[in-house]
Amino acid sequence: MENAAKRAARVPELPLGPRRPEESLQDWLYRELRQAILDGRLGRGRKLPATRDLARQHGLSRGTVVAVFEQMRAEGYLISRVGSGTRVSERLPDERLSSGPAAPIEAPPVPGLDLAEKTSRPFHPNRPALAQFPVETWARIASRRLRRVTPGMLAGGDPQGYPALRQAVAEYLGASRGVRCVAEQVVVTSGVQQSLDLLARLLTGPGSRVWVEDPGYFGATDAFRHAGAEIVGVPVDESGLQVDEGLRLAPNAAAAYVTPGHHFGLGVTMSAARRIQLLGWARQTDAWVIEDDYDSEFRFSGRPVPALQGLDTAGRVIHLGTFNKTLFPALRLGYIVLPEALLEPFLRRRYELDRYPPTIPQAILAEFLAEGHFGRHLRRMRELYAERLEALQDDARRFLAGLAEIPAIQAGLFTTARLVNGMSSEEAERLAAEREITAFGLHRCCLRRTDIRGVQLGFAGYTRTEIRAGVLGLAAAWERRRGV
Amino acid sequence: MENAAKRAARVPELPLGPRRPEESLQDWLYRELRQAILDGRLGRGRKLPATRDLARQHGLSRGTVVAVFEQMRAEGYLISRVGSGTRVSERLPDERLSSGPAAPIEAPPVPGLDLAEKTSRPFHPNRPALAQFPVETWARIASRRLRRVTPGMLAGGDPQGYPALRQAVAEYLGASRGVRCVAEQVVVTSGVQQSLDLLARLLTGPGSRVWVEDPGYFGATDAFRHAGAEIVGVPVDESGLQVDEGLRLAPNAAAAYVTPGHHFGLGVTMSAARRIQLLGWARQTDAWVIEDDYDSEFRFSGRPVPALQGLDTAGRVIHLGTFNKTLFPALRLGYIVLPEALLEPFLRRRYELDRYPPTIPQAILAEFLAEGHFGRHLRRMRELYAERLEALQDDARRFLAGLAEIPAIQAGLFTTARLVNGMSSEEAERLAAEREITAFGLHRCCLRRTDIRGVQLGFAGYTRTEIRAGVLGLAAAWERRRGV
Repeated sequence: MENAAKRAARVPELPLGPRRPEESLQDWLYRELRQAILDGRLGRGRKLPATRDLARQHGLSRGTVVAVFEQMRAEGYLISRVGSGTRVSERLPDERLSSGPAAPIEAPPVPGLDLAEKTSRPFHPNRPALAQFPVETWARIASRRLRRVTPGMLAGGDPQGYPALRQAVAEYLGASRGVRCVAEQVVVTSGVQQSLDLLARLLTGPGSRVWVEDPGYFGATDAFRHAGAEIVGVPVDESGLQVDEGLRLAPNAAAAYVTPGHHFGLGVTMSAARRIQLLGWARQTDAWVIEDDYDSEFRFSGRPVPALQGLDTAGRVIHLGTFNKTLFPALRLGYIVLPEALLEPFLRRRYELDRYPPTIPQAILAEFLAEGHFGRHLRRMRELYAERLEALQDDARRFLAGLAEIPAIQAGLFTTARLVNGMSSEEAERLAAEREITAFGLHRCCLRRTDIRGVQLGFAGYTRTEIRAGVLGLAAAWERRRGV
Repeated sequence: MENAAKRAARVPELPLGPRRPEESLQDWLYRELRQAILDGRLGRGRKLPATRDLARQHGLSRGTVVAVFEQMRAEGYLISRVGSGTRVSERLPDERLSSGPAAPIEAPPVPGLDLAEKTSRPFHPNRPALAQFPVETWARIASRRLRRVTPGMLAGGDPQGYPALRQAVAEYLGASRGVRCVAEQVVVTSGVQQSLDLLARLLTGPGSRVWVEDPGYFGATDAFRHAGAEIVGVPVDESGLQVDEGLRLAPNAAAAYVTPGHHFGLGVTMSAARRIQLLGWARQTDAWVIEDDYDSEFRFSGRPVPALQGLDTAGRVIHLGTFNKTLFPALRLGYIVLPEALLEPFLRRRYELDRYPPTIPQAILAEFLAEGHFGRHLRRMRELYAERLEALQDDARRFLAGLAEIPAIQAGLFTTARLVNGMSSEEAERLAAEREITAFGLHRCCLRRTDIRGVQLGFAGYTRTEIRAGVLGLAAAWERRRGV
């Protein structure tokens, strides 16, 4: 459409300072752009050249420019809008940290996409032990199920999910997680993220406020923000969500999002007193409590804690879970347990948004559950993950002393490591990434908190040898910051 | 939680008039409630008793009450909100029809959920010939693929979709639909509805306006309405969308949604002149054109018409398609072809909303396409559907003369039948439903149009015998309105 030379002539040059010795092209571009923004040479709201123009101007590959833009967007220096390119943020992250507590949180850093394909290297927090998944059993059930497929099964689907799967989920949740429900309350989704998106759009919207744990799961913040709700970050301590703070900040919030079984960020379990307080608030104000029970199936110490939903006598708790962590992420099947009052409106909305989930994978999963393979796999994985967590804890004590500490009580596929050498979460993540190690910084989970220094280390998907190599890599990466 | 007698005592009685001879309970309840609303006995915004209380008061089954509420909601007499029960609409449909053209369309009737499970009876518009689907071939590929599954394949997924599937889709679209694209522009979704939901949220929102065909696909209206956009109904005639009308009503709309290959509602194909006019508008105003090519694979007469996307030289057309109609609805796999400028923001948003589609079904489908089974199935179905359409046309000429007429040029899984005896679309649908026949009334597709009298009749999924029985049923159902 357009002549390349003409286009090039029209694009303003963006001058950058010299590259330091041994500095990578990516680090150089990041440092120079950030400095230009902080100096005001690239003013607020200023439009940046397109990635291909910037790459051409400075002899870089376009991939390098895209990667730096992506990082600076995640950190809040840049914003992108469809059709208007990339611009400098009106409000820089350096200011956001020191701003007062009253301004609404608009766009927290959005992580994830850049990490989505890097699960094979330690310590990705969302990787189960996939080499141990009983693929042959799954394939056998799939073949058998497909041979029996009828036209009726191909025809359409239930917006609520395949009935046999809902039945199996209800039985599992009752027996293992203390959830009180029948199959009629269960809705099948593609996982926690879709569940949150659907619930956020049904229960919240412009003008409503939502309590979200701070630190907490960024995916929940995304969902409520996209629905137009105002995010109220409620601090979490060693007993879980500080309900008193929620009451002070937004007593009339429409909903609260919590991870009571295994807090996403700090790893703590919500105390009984807090649970009762939270349910009391929900009952009195008709608020909804969204319980994300994303990986509490794996508990390695302490007493098993039943789901919050089982304590609720007023029908205010919505319980979420997923098979993407207990089985395999590529499966894309999860579930919501809804109070009866929400069922009809939820299903109507769900039908409008994506009709119904795919039938055949649900039928295969239903048989996998009904035949006891799921329970067997969970028991095997619980044992294996406990060993792997222990390996990580041992190695951390040996090689990360003075750098990071791992708390004792544990559940799930990952652990939090507290940074004790003065490093920020961002720095720890970046230094690890330079050595091809994934150490998901807790800054990605923070809304207003600036006192959290830590990373998430996934252990479930890695062998003892991989864990050892990863810990040694972290030690080398973080060493130069020892004792700072 | 609550004593039933106490609750019953608190609920106000809703008095209803007597039932007419031979009137069904459902018809009676509908007639009485509607009359009470139109008379003002049930005022605007007035809360209705819960379905169970109303059922108890009048000795009805709860299912009857739910069905009537659902119908009246679809028609716009009632509205439901989460947590606040069912109320009488503030604006009744009887007023909406006669209102001026300037008021925004807020909540068109939402059909679908009530029909989702009734695809086995004629003439559901969204049912392929499922008995002819090569299940054995599919099962064989699935078994083979599952035996070769690696941990990497279970690990996660590409937010854009499985690469081999995207490649196969790009090749198919280029060869068969005249779409100009490479695999890098293809994104896999669960089908047209999810595609529309994602696009609506990315490209439109509060403050933006969208052209939607009137009559047109109600699912598109749902998606844009949920995104907060203002729906601008643009009339459709025998040449497709009246672009001049769109220019008059909302020249600066953010997007236009069209079904140029096989109009959803009237069945027409958009003319070349209209296509060029629409693309010119999009290019000049930087608007997006969303082309829903939902079932143009099946064309039974006239010249094959390539996709609108192939005519677009300015990168403004987004092309949507689905395998849920060409293969089977329970599959839940469709695709979007995006202009390059949209790819990065779309993928970021998609990742935030539901991460990525399930990998294994995509891998199976990719092999089904690569091995030529898809092409073979399409050719067989095209032949079979042409026979079935002919059977429907023959039977309609013989038994529905004076009641309904089926136009000559055809594509897709269903045809429109124009009602020629003065019946409304609502009435035709209702009379058919009383005889267990699905005749989807075009009132469900209308935004402002009141001049459309017709139903959609799906023929693809039914045998010659089923079609004959269905047509005879329609003749009996509509007979008493002959010549009115």
